[in-house]
Amino acid sequence: MTARRVALVGAGMSRFGVGGKSAAGLFAESFEELRSGLAGMPGVSDGDDADPAVAFLRAHLGEAFVGSLSFGGAQLGNPAALFLEHVGLAGVSARRVENACASGGFALRDAVNAVASGKTELALAAGVEVMNDVPDRHKRYWLGVSGDTEWERTAGLTFPGVYALMAARHMHEYGTTKEQLAAVAVKNHANGALNPKAQFQKEVDEKRVVSAPAVCDPLGLFDCCSTTDGAAMVLVASEKLAGDLMQEPVWVAGSGASTDALAIHDRERLTEIPATARAKEAALQDAERGGFSLGIEDVDLAEVHDCFTIAELMAVEGLGFCGLGEGGAFTKSGATRRDSGNGPAVNPSGGLKAKGHPLGATGVAQAVEVYRQLTGQADKRQVRDARVALTHNVGGSGATCAVHLFQRGDA
Amino acid sequence: MTARRVALVGAGMSRFGVGGKSAAGLFAESFEELRSGLAGMPGVSDGDDADPAVAFLRAHLGEAFVGSLSFGGAQLGNPAALFLEHVGLAGVSARRVENACASGGFALRDAVNAVASGKTELALAAGVEVMNDVPDRHKRYWLGVSGDTEWERTAGLTFPGVYALMAARHMHEYGTTKEQLAAVAVKNHANGALNPKAQFQKEVDEKRVVSAPAVCDPLGLFDCCSTTDGAAMVLVASEKLAGDLMQEPVWVAGSGASTDALAIHDRERLTEIPATARAKEAALQDAERGGFSLGIEDVDLAEVHDCFTIAELMAVEGLGFCGLGEGGAFTKSGATRRDSGNGPAVNPSGGLKAKGHPLGATGVAQAVEVYRQLTGQADKRQVRDARVALTHNVGGSGATCAVHLFQRGDA
Repeated sequence: MTARRVALVGAGMSRFGVGGKSAAGLFAESFEELRSGLAGMPGVSDGDDADPAVAFLRAHLGEAFVGSLSFGGAQLGNPAALFLEHVGLAGVSARRVENACASGGFALRDAVNAVASGKTELALAAGVEVMNDVPDRHKRYWLGVSGDTEWERTAGLTFPGVYALMAARHMHEYGTTKEQLAAVAVKNHANGALNPKAQFQKEVDEKRVVSAPAVCDPLGLFDCCSTTDGAAMVLVASEKLAGDLMQEPVWVAGSGASTDALAIHDRERLTEIPATARAKEAALQDAERGGFSLGIEDVDLAEVHDCFTIAELMAVEGLGFCGLGEGGAFTKSGATRRDSGNGPAVNPSGGLKAKGHPLGATGVAQAVEVYRQLTGQADKRQVRDARVALTHNVGGSGATCAVHLFQRGDA
Repeated sequence: MTARRVALVGAGMSRFGVGGKSAAGLFAESFEELRSGLAGMPGVSDGDDADPAVAFLRAHLGEAFVGSLSFGGAQLGNPAALFLEHVGLAGVSARRVENACASGGFALRDAVNAVASGKTELALAAGVEVMNDVPDRHKRYWLGVSGDTEWERTAGLTFPGVYALMAARHMHEYGTTKEQLAAVAVKNHANGALNPKAQFQKEVDEKRVVSAPAVCDPLGLFDCCSTTDGAAMVLVASEKLAGDLMQEPVWVAGSGASTDALAIHDRERLTEIPATARAKEAALQDAERGGFSLGIEDVDLAEVHDCFTIAELMAVEGLGFCGLGEGGAFTKSGATRRDSGNGPAVNPSGGLKAKGHPLGATGVAQAVEVYRQLTGQADKRQVRDARVALTHNVGGSGATCAVHLFQRGDA
């Protein structure tokens, strides 16, 4: 039985950074961008409503999925209802989706499932996190809870430590260098400098990256993403509704997800995240079932989970953009820069590294970038002739992973 | 476009109570019951596998949804992957679903969506909570987080306080009495006494209930549910797969959900939970789309969210089993006892009141009871000729609500 096709028909995100806004305030900022995009669409503004976009949403929106770790606990339980209420959509079925840093990717997956089920024509996938309203010692607690508690957190192994172990082993096995890791940071900060929503909008050079203070050897300050406040959302619509709203739909061509052991000592290798390859395969199979003829070589741009520079190297390897162990040389060659002609543009938004990483919002913000790129609205960071895109969102150190494939225009 | 039909094909739950097990341990206890039920089914045990049920799940299970507040925070982030790993199912796409006490009901809803999408033939809806591994003062914190933080929790208004306000207003407006509230406790403890999985398996009489110490006037000790450790899970299958496994499917005929203002001062009335009526209407509409001809009068048994006795009165009113304000007299009349002949059996499992209320597990445990009842396996508490059932799961004081309808046999 063929799955029903679904498409993105709207996107919004807040400024990422340290803003002092509440989670509900960031959600509303993100919603405002989505609302104003929707208001200009054919079929939305035809009525007499004072706020046609909200009237349209009240009429069509059947489900909402909000990715969040509820970092800091300001509204730890039941927050999804609060967010919907805050933007005038109380009543809509909504829940929080939590898979640590992959919460947003799974919120998107569940929104895709909801629309594909035929039970609603329109679903909202959102994500939100406020990380900077608690003191640093509390940040360490809240970040730690996304890794294994029994074996890792209580032993003091935080995420920089986990990814530093991965980086050290990658260097040992494949000869990966600090300069190759730095190439991720240099590229993503260059992209982030063109993104007005990014937390960091300044370029950095290789020298500055490799000589930065160590956070956890071999990872330095610029190898690590930051703690960020932010929110992001996309609208997922049925084929029929998408056709009413847009001439050329941005299809969610495939959705794939996987899980793995939570603690890294339960995995066979430190140098890869097996859930990435499995989620990618599942996404390709899902695309095939939906009638999309796509291979990984068709991807024009990819938003991947670069919580640390080593994570992007493992991502480009696990997704098959290059071979295992080749991520360092591949990235250092410039292949993943925008419009290099030698590979997909990786993290044109600036990635987690420069755009920032508000945990639950990240997976959705990746889809926001895809929507901007595939509708030609990415401004100075526009990837030329972008037609096929991929998002890759990892929870913790790889216990959860969601991969999505997108295609502009006809299948 | 008609939605694809889905059915329950398996169920399991742990003993509810104060057990000393970890969340993963309770998940595994619940899984063991599901696994052994599955192992005896045609089409599962045909192969040569040492553990045919797990082999069957590895082959068919495409999604898992785990409802949990992660109460106490032992594994606050990313727990879904850990639970799957713990029962030999690492790799399966899984996420935590959180809507406070309605987490389980939304996990079920999302499992239904996942199978209805046609993207998988089989999904797991599970829920788990450990509430008794933290001291009492921490329990107050963790329970409080499911209500509004800004206006209620920080003002000291805990859940007994919120529901006591509702009860006092219900008494004022409708003349509801303490004896009518007590009728809920008496009935549900009588049912719980027949449920070997229930936290409390002892009957109580009206005198004991009305003379119990006050928790928050007018609610006494027996008007309040307990803090409970427990896990529950059901398997949701496509029509085709269900047909291979069972002669007479237990259809999930309809799924409905709604949200509302999180803080009670933002609602029009204290005497009802509007999300209940909206979710019920949505479930009936969903059933109609699926070709099920069902009205609320067809319900033979209902598992409703009786976190406090007043909550069950508002539930039977909001679901339409009786009129607004009539819940007290309706319940006191005995109409909602098993096999009364004058109304649906309400909470034949013992409900949250006697079976216990492990937050994230509750909504799924309701579906476990429905599966047992509609397959004639409810033993001493079997509802006679049960064919249509309903579950009603509320998050917080009514910010979230999920209602499901079930039907045994042909539509």
